[in-house]
Amino acid sequence: MAISLTELRTGNPRALARAISQVERQDAAAETLLAELWPWAGKGQIIGITGPPGSGKSTLLRALISRLHTAKHKVALLAVDPTSPVTGGALLGDRIRMTGLESAAHVYVRSLATRGARGALSDVTWDAVTVLDALGFDPVFVETVGAGQNEHEIRTLAHTTVLVDAPGQGDSIQTLKAGILEICDIVVINKEDRPGSQRAAQQAKQMLQLGAAPVADAWQVPVLTTDALSGSGVSILWERIRAHFTHVNDTGQRQAQDEARAAQRVDRLVQQGWAQLLPQFITPDLRAQALAQVHRQQLDPHSAARSLLQQLPQPPALSK
Amino acid sequence: MAISLTELRTGNPRALARAISQVERQDAAAETLLAELWPWAGKGQIIGITGPPGSGKSTLLRALISRLHTAKHKVALLAVDPTSPVTGGALLGDRIRMTGLESAAHVYVRSLATRGARGALSDVTWDAVTVLDALGFDPVFVETVGAGQNEHEIRTLAHTTVLVDAPGQGDSIQTLKAGILEICDIVVINKEDRPGSQRAAQQAKQMLQLGAAPVADAWQVPVLTTDALSGSGVSILWERIRAHFTHVNDTGQRQAQDEARAAQRVDRLVQQGWAQLLPQFITPDLRAQALAQVHRQQLDPHSAARSLLQQLPQPPALSK
Repeated sequence: MAISLTELRTGNPRALARAISQVERQDAAAETLLAELWPWAGKGQIIGITGPPGSGKSTLLRALISRLHTAKHKVALLAVDPTSPVTGGALLGDRIRMTGLESAAHVYVRSLATRGARGALSDVTWDAVTVLDALGFDPVFVETVGAGQNEHEIRTLAHTTVLVDAPGQGDSIQTLKAGILEICDIVVINKEDRPGSQRAAQQAKQMLQLGAAPVADAWQVPVLTTDALSGSGVSILWERIRAHFTHVNDTGQRQAQDEARAAQRVDRLVQQGWAQLLPQFITPDLRAQALAQVHRQQLDPHSAARSLLQQLPQPPALSK
Repeated sequence: MAISLTELRTGNPRALARAISQVERQDAAAETLLAELWPWAGKGQIIGITGPPGSGKSTLLRALISRLHTAKHKVALLAVDPTSPVTGGALLGDRIRMTGLESAAHVYVRSLATRGARGALSDVTWDAVTVLDALGFDPVFVETVGAGQNEHEIRTLAHTTVLVDAPGQGDSIQTLKAGILEICDIVVINKEDRPGSQRAAQQAKQMLQLGAAPVADAWQVPVLTTDALSGSGVSILWERIRAHFTHVNDTGQRQAQDEARAAQRVDRLVQQGWAQLLPQFITPDLRAQALAQVHRQQLDPHSAARSLLQQLPQPPALSK
């Protein structure tokens, strides 16, 4: 069934659910829909929320979304779950706590699976953000689970990246060490009532100072403490999130971010199309012959790859 | 300076260090060296050790390697550290504890950086395993840090995959949930003196029973408890690791593993060569023109990608 743009743009929840399902199929109809919506995209703030498991990201997001809902924001959350490399199943445990808000008008919450074993955000995530942004959701939160794997990608997808950590986590220091601090715009130490929260905040501040080169117009990464359960610090967090959006708009960084996001999407689609062409040049037969030589130890993997690559078309002459 | 195969094969430590450095450069000389060593590879047991940060993997490996050294094994460890996506620096903290063993004859320990932000094992890791295996190291341990990201790849690289976890970790349950149990051959609950270790072992056993389909000749994944500091359980762990190697040899799985490992290496090299050709067909100019249209919202990313892909060469006729 075709999705009515009119229904979508007037906020029909069933039309939206169908649109996101369409995007999940990544088929020709999804491409048509995305082409139609593209001219309306580019307005809302896209916010990446990342941090290790157990830091209370989901609870904090619930508190944040609940407030934004009350304040009449039209808010969306895409939660990207680690996928079992074997079963392909997504973990929905944390999502259940969102129930209640999910049925509210102007709040859209959806879990999406990651693409593969490497923790990359899926194509679906990127396209679903476009749909939600085009339909006036602002902000669009993208929550990723993990510590150190897909933070680089979330930074390209989002205008503002928030790292949520909690004191006393086994891998807390690991998170800080793994370079995530360097790519986030706001640091939150959640579960502020726990022992060690002030120390963790101090550590984060010190590490940020170590890494920061003094640049004019640079955003000073704030380190906040929150308690998602009591709601402490949640309003200040939202205020800082919006302040960062103002900052990137005022300094012109917003345009660079939007261009980088679109370029990343185009590049990935081109790379995927290119990769799909490969088996048409290196046929299964050619590959099997080369692998057989490798298994008999007549040929090493590098030499086998080189001989297969000689089957490829030559690029056009570089003169033009 | 060319690396002498004779020196390498007689166990000259400096020649080995130069060989691994050569492989790290991934240049033509590295390819020559790998081609020369390939006929000697395929003898030793490759063991993947994975698990969340803080589970005590490094300490356990130290205890294991220390025993294997005493028992006159020629043993190697490649430690794959998460790399900061921004600074590119590897974390060497855990490695320091290995000092002492590193200088022992017949023990080779080296840290390698991961390739990128996604936690994939680097090409260097795969090739360094080949070098060490060809030079008679048995076992070759590959230690990866992380929880749920690169376990699928380590399973292809290794004959035997060991998951190390510890009770009371914030993300312990997360690790179990994330499907890692399904892809490991041996589960170790380290820090067995901590409260909750027996419960964690019980949980792991139950989850393994849930996932296990009864198959003839199937390996029964053992759940062991260890204490790396006192050495408790370390001998049994080694015994189970060797029992698994005997199992894959006796059931013929070993050959399938070795073929899959070589195929993965060839496929990745071919894909990399293919990806490198792309900018020769889609020139920076063509790409920039398409992106400009996307930024002006005249073209959406999918349509832009489609128009760029039309610049690509057509595959040869499928009839042959």
